Amino acid sequence: MDTLEAIKTRRSIRQYKDTPVTDEQLKAVLEAVQWAPSWANTQCWELVLVRDPAVKEKLAGTLAPGNPSTDAIKKAPIVIVACAKKGQAGYYKGQAITSKGDWLMYDMGLAMQNLCLAAQSLGLGTVHIGAFVPEDAEKVVGVPEGVTVVAMTPLGVPAAESRAPKRRAIEEFVHHDKY
Amino acid sequence: MDTLEAIKTRRSIRQYKDTPVTDEQLKAVLEAVQWAPSWANTQCWELVLVRDPAVKEKLAGTLAPGNPSTDAIKKAPIVIVACAKKGQAGYYKGQAITSKGDWLMYDMGLAMQNLCLAAQSLGLGTVHIGAFVPEDAEKVVGVPEGVTVVAMTPLGVPAAESRAPKRRAIEEFVHHDKY
Repeated sequence: MDTLEAIKTRRSIRQYKDTPVTDEQLKAVLEAVQWAPSWANTQCWELVLVRDPAVKEKLAGTLAPGNPSTDAIKKAPIVIVACAKKGQAGYYKGQAITSKGDWLMYDMGLAMQNLCLAAQSLGLGTVHIGAFVPEDAEKVVGVPEGVTVVAMTPLGVPAAESRAPKRRAIEEFVHHDKY
Repeated sequence: MDTLEAIKTRRSIRQYKDTPVTDEQLKAVLEAVQWAPSWANTQCWELVLVRDPAVKEKLAGTLAPGNPSTDAIKKAPIVIVACAKKGQAGYYKGQAITSKGDWLMYDMGLAMQNLCLAAQSLGLGTVHIGAFVPEDAEKVVGVPEGVTVVAMTPLGVPAAESRAPKRRAIEEFVHHDKY
């Protein structure tokens, strides 16, 4: 699928079919993360691919009450838990070098958007999920010291289309030379 | 350009031609931001497009000493300063709802990766720049209270190809069911 088309047609998918994700599809989606840019090429990403229904159930339990993606976490064939090593992005010789501190949230955004667009181009759905208790998800997948869970997404064939929520007009968010 | 190809061929471009970015190209790149996903559709992004050489020069001065993108900021036809409204992404009723606090870094990563991939698909170069003093850049473009500068990128026709830095193998960053 054309890049601009993938960008414009990607939706947050919260209903999935049972259809498995093929090895070839999964490889393409993981390569999209592999090729993401990152702070000084630090590549802080670590992904946990969850297929075990019991683990999915526990992950669903970490979501904020009423999170509309809860069922998707239970039902999608794969859930990808996006983790990051701390103290790499934004750091130089062990020190954060800007007031933003750890740059891992930005870098994980880059990597996960690559993943979602690759999925979209293959006819697979995703949704960036951030409204959950990271500390609980970290226990569920058992991350080591120094690694944090940032986001998660189901991955699978969409069972229903989502409507595109309204977007701000370009003129509303673009400024010229001065804010 | 095909999505997977754009993802794999995108490089961090630090040398630009004088060739102007056309209105049509710019529109496509800005639409890529407009269509980015965001926390509860909060769309916290604000972009300052800098064409004024004096402003570019000042922005270049905010970069960390030795930042290899300094010349690109001065020479590219357009510099995009990626700003974000604070207290929207990750918030519900004025309160951050997870321990990650403001989710704006993640959301800006999503939006800026859309922008870079759209640019790549049109033959334009970009590079995510984070190693600068945000407070200084905020003064240069004059952001109001409640808005922060997150990143910047030059935008233009590449004058030289960059080599792809080495990537971690997929098996190195992928875990199954448990980290």
